[in-house]
Amino acid sequence: MMTLDVTRTALLFVDPYNDFLAEQGKLWPMVAQVATEVGLHAHLKAITHAARTAGIQVVIVPHHRWKPGDLDGWSHPNPYMAGGYRRQVFAEGTWGGEWYPDFAPRSGDLICTEHWGSSGFANTNLDTILKQKGITHVILIGLIANTCIESTARYAVELGYHVTLVRDATAAASAEAMRCAHDINAPTYAHVVTTTAELVSALAPLEPPQAAEKQPR
Amino acid sequence: MMTLDVTRTALLFVDPYNDFLAEQGKLWPMVAQVATEVGLHAHLKAITHAARTAGIQVVIVPHHRWKPGDLDGWSHPNPYMAGGYRRQVFAEGTWGGEWYPDFAPRSGDLICTEHWGSSGFANTNLDTILKQKGITHVILIGLIANTCIESTARYAVELGYHVTLVRDATAAASAEAMRCAHDINAPTYAHVVTTTAELVSALAPLEPPQAAEKQPR
Amino acid sequence: MMTLDVTRTALLFVDPYNDFLAEQGKLWPMVAQVATEVGLHAHLKAITHAARTAGIQVVIVPHHRWKPGDLDGWSHPNPYMAGGYRRQVFAEGTWGGEWYPDFAPRSGDLICTEHWGSSGFANTNLDTILKQKGITHVILIGLIANTCIESTARYAVELGYHVTLVRDATAAASAEAMRCAHDINAPTYAHVVTTTAELVSALAPLEPPQAAEKQPR
Amino acid sequence: MMTLDVTRTALLFVDPYNDFLAEQGKLWPMVAQVATEVGLHAHLKAITHAARTAGIQVVIVPHHRWKPGDLDGWSHPNPYMAGGYRRQVFAEGTWGGEWYPDFAPRSGDLICTEHWGSSGFANTNLDTILKQKGITHVILIGLIANTCIESTARYAVELGYHVTLVRDATAAASAEAMRCAHDINAPTYAHVVTTTAELVSALAPLEPPQAAEKQPR
Repeated sequence: MMTLDVTRTALLFVDPYNDFLAEQGKLWPMVAQVATEVGLHAHLKAITHAARTAGIQVVIVPHHRWKPGDLDGWSHPNPYMAGGYRRQVFAEGTWGGEWYPDFAPRSGDLICTEHWGSSGFANTNLDTILKQKGITHVILIGLIANTCIESTARYAVELGYHVTLVRDATAAASAEAMRCAHDINAPTYAHVVTTTAELVSALAPLEPPQAAEKQPR
Repeated sequence: MMTLDVTRTALLFVDPYNDFLAEQGKLWPMVAQVATEVGLHAHLKAITHAARTAGIQVVIVPHHRWKPGDLDGWSHPNPYMAGGYRRQVFAEGTWGGEWYPDFAPRSGDLICTEHWGSSGFANTNLDTILKQKGITHVILIGLIANTCIESTARYAVELGYHVTLVRDATAAASAEAMRCAHDINAPTYAHVVTTTAELVSALAPLEPPQAAEKQPR
Repeated sequence: MMTLDVTRTALLFVDPYNDFLAEQGKLWPMVAQVATEVGLHAHLKAITHAARTAGIQVVIVPHHRWKPGDLDGWSHPNPYMAGGYRRQVFAEGTWGGEWYPDFAPRSGDLICTEHWGSSGFANTNLDTILKQKGITHVILIGLIANTCIESTARYAVELGYHVTLVRDATAAASAEAMRCAHDINAPTYAHVVTTTAELVSALAPLEPPQAAEKQPR
Repeated sequence: MMTLDVTRTALLFVDPYNDFLAEQGKLWPMVAQVATEVGLHAHLKAITHAARTAGIQVVIVPHHRWKPGDLDGWSHPNPYMAGGYRRQVFAEGTWGGEWYPDFAPRSGDLICTEHWGSSGFANTNLDTILKQKGITHVILIGLIANTCIESTARYAVELGYHVTLVRDATAAASAEAMRCAHDINAPTYAHVVTTTAELVSALAPLEPPQAAEKQPR
C-alpha cells in the first residue's frame, strides 16, 4: 500500500481549463473518449477532495493562455505549439482559458506560472515554490497523459522529486497513447503508477498536519 | 568601438516600474541619489530610442508584483524578499506596480514572465523566448545594478549569452554599490561594460534589418 | 525535402557505450531485436559519416558511468535508475562504460558532461556548449528511443531548439516502444521525425563551412 | 545564535584546488593577501572538521579543470574565462588541478560535476544531488568570495535554498572585493552572513544523526 507524507507531498493539477474539460471546450473532442472511459471528472474530484482533506498542498500547473501575436518572429515553434496557436487554445480573456469550475483553485492552493511547452517546470516558477514549501514528492493529475503530464513528470524526476502518476486521473487522444504513457514510458522514469482508488485509500486516513507540526526549514 | 549585430542582440530592460522610477515610488528614495548623479532617466530614454530605431529587440524583464499571501508558508524567503513583501513593492493592481510611463512596453517589445528573486532568467521564460528570436547577445539596463541586473547578467553568462552592462543606465543604493557592480564584479563575468554614450554611438549607424534578411533558423 | 544549416545544427549522439551497442554489452539484449530490425549500427555509421563530412558539429551525450556508492543515501532514486545501479551499467573503468569503437569521439567532436537521469540536458553543460557554438538545431541519434532520446528531445524543445528525430537511428525494448516514441509522442513536441535515408540525402550535398564564413557571434 | 538542522544542511566547499590554496598555485598570488588576513586555511579546517563531526554533508563543488582546446570555436567566452584558459588554471592531470591535500574529499563527501563559469549550480548536477539528500540549507566556503561563491549563492537562493555565507572562510583579490561580497551584495540575497567562530559554535553541540533517524523522503 502507498504511504504518503502529507507535509512533503504536493498534488500537481495540470491544465484544468474549460478548453480541456468542458463539453464545449476546444480540446475536449480530442480527449473525450478516453476521459469518459476512465471516469476522468469523477476521479479528479475524488483526488482533489481527498488531497485537500488530508492537508496536501494543491498546485495548479497551467498552460500558457493564447494571446494574439504570441509566436510572432519565432524561429521554430514546433508543429503542436503552432497548431494550438492557430486554434487559439486557452485564449486569454475567453471562457476556454478560464478554470473549469469544478477544479478552479481554492483558498490555500498555489498557482505556478504558465508553461508554454509541455513541461510544467520548464520556464516557470514551479520548482522554486515547491522547494520553499518543503515538497519532495509530487502526484500528477490532469491533461494530457503523454504530453504535459509526461513532460512535467520527466522534469520532476530530473529535479530530484519522487513522482507518482495516476492512470485514471488523466486522459489522452487514444487508448494507445494512455498505454504509452503509463505502461511503456512511465516504468522508465516514474516512481509509482497508481489508480485513483489506491491513491484515495492512501489519503483517507491521513490527518492534516497541525500548523505547529511543520517547522520552517 | 563596440560593434553590434542587431539581429542577434536584445536589450533587456529590468523592472521599469513606477515604484522604482517615479518620484513617489516606494523604492525611488533608495536609488534617487545615484540615479540622479548618473542621469538614469535620460540615459534609459536615449538607449531605448536608439535600440528601437536600430531594430533591436527590446525585452521587458519584470519583477514579481506583490500579491497578498505571496510568501505564506514559505520555509525561508530571504530577508530582502521578506522586506519587499512587507512594503508591498510593485503591488499588483496599484500604481507602483504599473510601468513607468516613459518606459512602458511598445508594440514589438516582448515581456517575459516575472522573476521573484533577483535573476530575470530564474524561474521565467526569458531564455526560451530569446532563443526563439535567435538572440545570442544581451544588453542590460534598468534596476538595480548590484541586485537584479547583476543576477540576470550572471545567469546570462552561464546560459551562454554575450553580456553587456551599461554603467550609467542603471542605479543602486550607493556609489559604492555601483562600483562593486561595475568595477569589482563585472570584470569577472561580463563581456563588456560600457556607457550610454558609447552604446548609442554604436547603435546610431545601424540599419534595422529587413524582414527578408532574417530567415527562420 | 529537409534543409539544414550546417553552421547551426548539431548531431547529438546519446550513449554510444559498449554496454548498449556491443554484443556482449549488458543492455544489448534489451535493444537487440529492434536494433537489428532497424539496422541501427549501419544507420549510426551513415549519419555520423555524413554529418562529419558536411561539417556538422557532433556532440557525444553520455550517460552517467556507474561508480560504487553512487546512490548511497539517496531519498528516492527511481526504479529504473536503481536497476541500472544494481547491474552496474556503464561502469567506470570497465569495458561496458567505454565507447563502442565505431562511435568513439573523433577530433573536433564535443563531449558534454554525463546525465544521470534520462535527459542529456538535465544537470549537464550541454545547453551552454551548444549556445557557445551557435547551435539552434539538434538531430538526435543513439539510445534509447523512448527514454534518453525522448527526454533529451523534450528538454531541447523547451530550451528553444529545433528538434529532429531519426526513427531508424535509435532502438528500444520493443517495436511498441518505438511506435510510442515516434508515432504517438514525437508529433506532440518534435519538429521533424525523419529516416536515415532522408537525413543522409539532406546532408550529402552540403559543403562544410569555411572557417571564415562563421563569424563570432 | 544560529541554529542548524544537520540532516537538512550541506557544506558546499568551492574549488579546493592547489592552484587556489597552495603557495605555488597559479591563483594563490591573487588571493594571498586577503586569505592570510582572514586566516583562510585555519578557518576552512575548523569548519570542515566541525561539519564532519556534526554529520553535515560535505559537497565539493569543483571548477572546470583546464583541457587543451576547451574554448575552440566558442563564440564568446568572457574575458575572465579566456584568461583562465590562457593560464591553464586547474589543468587536468597537473598538480594545480589536484585537490589541496588538507581539503581533499573524505569518505562520505559528495563531489558534484565541474562548473565552467562561476556558479556551482549552472550546468552541473549539484541541485539534483542536494535534493536527493534532502538538503534545503547550504553553507558556502572556499573561493572566490565575489565570483564562484557569490554566483553559487545567488543561484542557490533562486533554487529555493537557505543560504549562509562565512566571511572569513573565503578570500578575494582585495579587501574591497570582500566588502562588496559580504557587506554590499550579500544582504540583498543571502539569509545569513556569519563568521567561522559563530558557525563552529553552532556546529559544536550538534549530534550527528543516527542512520535510523533520517527516513527516506
